[in-house]
Amino acid sequence: MDYQAILDEIYEEIQPELKRGKVADYIPALAEVAQEQFAMTVTLEDGTVYSVGDAKKKFSIQSISKVFTFTLALDIYSTELYKRVGVEPSGNPFNSLVQLEYENGIPRNPFINAGAIAITDSLVSHYKDHYKTLEVIMNFVRELSGNPSLSFDPEVANSEMEYGDRNLSLAHLMKSFGNFENDVTNTVMTYFKHCSITMNTEELSRAFLFLAFAGKDPISGREFITCPKTKRINAVMLTCGHYDASGEFAFHVGLPAKSGVGGGIAAVVPGKMSIAVWSPALNRYGNSHAGTLALEKFTTKTGVSIF
Amino acid sequence: MDYQAILDEIYEEIQPELKRGKVADYIPALAEVAQEQFAMTVTLEDGTVYSVGDAKKKFSIQSISKVFTFTLALDIYSTELYKRVGVEPSGNPFNSLVQLEYENGIPRNPFINAGAIAITDSLVSHYKDHYKTLEVIMNFVRELSGNPSLSFDPEVANSEMEYGDRNLSLAHLMKSFGNFENDVTNTVMTYFKHCSITMNTEELSRAFLFLAFAGKDPISGREFITCPKTKRINAVMLTCGHYDASGEFAFHVGLPAKSGVGGGIAAVVPGKMSIAVWSPALNRYGNSHAGTLALEKFTTKTGVSIF
Amino acid sequence: MDYQAILDEIYEEIQPELKRGKVADYIPALAEVAQEQFAMTVTLEDGTVYSVGDAKKKFSIQSISKVFTFTLALDIYSTELYKRVGVEPSGNPFNSLVQLEYENGIPRNPFINAGAIAITDSLVSHYKDHYKTLEVIMNFVRELSGNPSLSFDPEVANSEMEYGDRNLSLAHLMKSFGNFENDVTNTVMTYFKHCSITMNTEELSRAFLFLAFAGKDPISGREFITCPKTKRINAVMLTCGHYDASGEFAFHVGLPAKSGVGGGIAAVVPGKMSIAVWSPALNRYGNSHAGTLALEKFTTKTGVSIF
Amino acid sequence: MDYQAILDEIYEEIQPELKRGKVADYIPALAEVAQEQFAMTVTLEDGTVYSVGDAKKKFSIQSISKVFTFTLALDIYSTELYKRVGVEPSGNPFNSLVQLEYENGIPRNPFINAGAIAITDSLVSHYKDHYKTLEVIMNFVRELSGNPSLSFDPEVANSEMEYGDRNLSLAHLMKSFGNFENDVTNTVMTYFKHCSITMNTEELSRAFLFLAFAGKDPISGREFITCPKTKRINAVMLTCGHYDASGEFAFHVGLPAKSGVGGGIAAVVPGKMSIAVWSPALNRYGNSHAGTLALEKFTTKTGVSIF
Repeated sequence: MDYQAILDEIYEEIQPELKRGKVADYIPALAEVAQEQFAMTVTLEDGTVYSVGDAKKKFSIQSISKVFTFTLALDIYSTELYKRVGVEPSGNPFNSLVQLEYENGIPRNPFINAGAIAITDSLVSHYKDHYKTLEVIMNFVRELSGNPSLSFDPEVANSEMEYGDRNLSLAHLMKSFGNFENDVTNTVMTYFKHCSITMNTEELSRAFLFLAFAGKDPISGREFITCPKTKRINAVMLTCGHYDASGEFAFHVGLPAKSGVGGGIAAVVPGKMSIAVWSPALNRYGNSHAGTLALEKFTTKTGVSIF
Repeated sequence: MDYQAILDEIYEEIQPELKRGKVADYIPALAEVAQEQFAMTVTLEDGTVYSVGDAKKKFSIQSISKVFTFTLALDIYSTELYKRVGVEPSGNPFNSLVQLEYENGIPRNPFINAGAIAITDSLVSHYKDHYKTLEVIMNFVRELSGNPSLSFDPEVANSEMEYGDRNLSLAHLMKSFGNFENDVTNTVMTYFKHCSITMNTEELSRAFLFLAFAGKDPISGREFITCPKTKRINAVMLTCGHYDASGEFAFHVGLPAKSGVGGGIAAVVPGKMSIAVWSPALNRYGNSHAGTLALEKFTTKTGVSIF
Repeated sequence: MDYQAILDEIYEEIQPELKRGKVADYIPALAEVAQEQFAMTVTLEDGTVYSVGDAKKKFSIQSISKVFTFTLALDIYSTELYKRVGVEPSGNPFNSLVQLEYENGIPRNPFINAGAIAITDSLVSHYKDHYKTLEVIMNFVRELSGNPSLSFDPEVANSEMEYGDRNLSLAHLMKSFGNFENDVTNTVMTYFKHCSITMNTEELSRAFLFLAFAGKDPISGREFITCPKTKRINAVMLTCGHYDASGEFAFHVGLPAKSGVGGGIAAVVPGKMSIAVWSPALNRYGNSHAGTLALEKFTTKTGVSIF
Repeated sequence: MDYQAILDEIYEEIQPELKRGKVADYIPALAEVAQEQFAMTVTLEDGTVYSVGDAKKKFSIQSISKVFTFTLALDIYSTELYKRVGVEPSGNPFNSLVQLEYENGIPRNPFINAGAIAITDSLVSHYKDHYKTLEVIMNFVRELSGNPSLSFDPEVANSEMEYGDRNLSLAHLMKSFGNFENDVTNTVMTYFKHCSITMNTEELSRAFLFLAFAGKDPISGREFITCPKTKRINAVMLTCGHYDASGEFAFHVGLPAKSGVGGGIAAVVPGKMSIAVWSPALNRYGNSHAGTLALEKFTTKTGVSIF
């Protein structure tokens, strides 16, 4: 299949859509990103890369980073992790406190904010301190992406913290239920830092390749996580990867994927490839408008789908 | 792969689990089913069938019937259907009114009770009367299963109606929001009737085969629904097929499937096979305890999974 | 104190407010009432009556009738009644199902719809049939008001039933929790009938006089209910009498009172008088806009208040 | 009326009840208070005081302090205050986040935790710093109680802060909605400090006397707040003074009152007297078990009630 031709076609077709949606504006550092940008990269088992658009342009991966921290925590804690975080779709907005209160401080899944903060907290407990934890996360993403100089944007992280009351509220609520082990402010700051990692679609696509191949990077041959755990990460991406529009996404795109408010989406086609797409304007659910459409076009044109 | 050997192995291993869980007891007609029963059937593309256990024993398919009515309604209404019923996981118990009230009478998905009743209502609107609607549903399931004499159990249907206040409450609530078109009592009765269809695992597995093959029965060659719509039905089964344990199911089993409180579960492996399993004792989420475990064992042993 | 002068003053001052608010329009029979109408009546211990405006004009008392049925049921069942209906403010809209579901079908108080329907159901259980129950209610209100020919408006009652799905939903939900004893449709119809009683402010004010005098009509000397029970009815009116604006009403008016969507409000000044006011346009909480203001003016001008 | 005889009678009758209920144990500093203690004081217009039990024994007034801060804030901000805090019963537990999230960070009333923290925040905004704010509050309570040496218990305040995550969560949630102006940690600490004020029933009864007399202390003649505002404070105490049992309390006791988890309750009989009662064991709603009963006995025996 001529993936480059398909990407080029999508790039053409998606142009009119770039004006639609709205760039995230809850923090100044994200609000100033220019709207009409688009990039898409496909990485195959043998490392072949197909790209269109601004595939070298860095963006804030935001919630996509939750897949990396979930992977690290699942590797460390295995089924023990589910005592602190569930794997059910929440049916509520990503930053809702309601369900967290009703369910005694146990977040529904690792991809809503409360769940991801609990995951970060579990990593801090394991690695003992915040600095070390962040270093482990950064090095993991660097190795996965093949770019040893990846970093996070401190301006974005600080901006998140400045407007971070909702997340601090979630963390204190979990702590009041006994589901939080470390200092709230520092842990939330560590969370904001890993959300502020900047990558381009080539790096991001590369970094997700192991999830398409049973946890083992098909190029380096290194196994990052076991096959059963990989399947579970993919299942959680499918059922919970797009906030309160996860069902819609599964329905229209049909691939395990994770989106971020920076406009990125990373997806996997098990056994075949990984895909990253980026366009900063979001739909009303907080997922990249053009990115979601581009992935839907890709699965329609190629016929790849897990269903 | 020797599917018969695998099924035999599962049958052995599952025996101690048959004592666990609890048969549905909200209506007398279901409560009297003997607990320690088990059946499992796999149907391949060419019609080859592998079974273990009581594969000829009929059971009440209950919510599994929602897949058949959703298929009929999606075929008739296409995307218009989503004005009345969503495709998002609900994150709430299957018979909850809370979300329905907050979301103005639009059920989250076609597999929670409110959604399935709205689907039945949409079929009654299309076929004009209740008798005709039920006939269409019955004939559809008869054709899919290859058994022209399939019927529903009127005793179960009447028992459901006698204890049907929660479902009547859901229907009246939808009507108060303008999302209900026909007589509440008759429509809910039609819904209870199709939920009371009795099938065995061989029939049920056969009836789901079209969903594993892009909407087209690979044996008869008949196309029941288009390929894109099939993928969407499978996506909704994966994200919403097991009430408030859909995430758990996707996580552990990794297949699109639908369960019923009669203890049945029907699953599809896209491009490969359909599977039906039955064991009447339910886990705390209302899904067959042994059935869920048997499917998890099957995917582990065979390596089939969509992830 | 010159009550007539005070009422006249209020009548003057209230005129510009009659254009504000909105007549209830959820059923046609109420929607056609002309907006700019107003009446107010004060009845003293010795039977002296002061009125302004259309004090002979009948209106639909709607939820005010819940005070009469609560009085009857409290007299019959005493504290047993609280097993079926609480006495707490709901903090939710009057027709909400959410709290009812979370609290297992026990309505918060007798003045939200679910609570009032449960009260009607308890009366039907006591009087054995619907016809007899309605007759008892009608005769009670006739005796209290001193008008033996009071009746309900069947057109309004039928119109309520036609748009009655929300209330039918509440009743079925209570039945599903075991908190409903009689036929749902007939009981809800009986409820709609007593809500459709028509009275004018002179009759309504007269009918509430016993609640200002410890349960005993100071004119006829007849005791309708004990003193402690009267205090409890007044307490529930104060905390729950105005749907989700009960706190606002207590705060601004400071009297036990009950409103109805027909635009009526009946209030009591314990030991002193009863007051009825009517103006059909409602504020956003469903309470008479001008009626609420008129009562606030009355308590400010006269200094009467329970606080 | 012989109030001393009535208090003595209540003291006798209440003895068996002192074993019931449970002392607050969410912080160690409160958990160690001995259970079987009781005190009750009535203060009349002319300063006459009647007491029984440990009326000189200090206890932590906790939420009763919210009446003092609400009085100060209402005096300063008048109706502007309602932009930040409502006056409706919440229908939810005192520390619930659910309603606060649904209602965009505006607490239902000044007596649930979120509302009281917002009130404290408004005082900090007015007095510019935390130290000054606390001083103003302390001096206000000292003047009202007639004891210039009243203080708060720093051990209790620190213990509250140590287990203060739920309240910090509420404050951050309000801040995320823009309804919080000062530093979260310091403001919540100031709130915990005023909750930790220790008083005995004689001081507390004396301190509430102004609320029984239209805002003016009948002994010193000093007006602390206007008459209309006093009525409003009393109305809010009646509808919201006892967490999620405010309706029950109004129903059984029939007086405006405010309780605290330290086991104190302060009540007013408008135009007549103020009452304070203390017994540390709480009922399941968090209100003093024996204290509530003692007040119910008092209103029954004396016939005082606002209804």
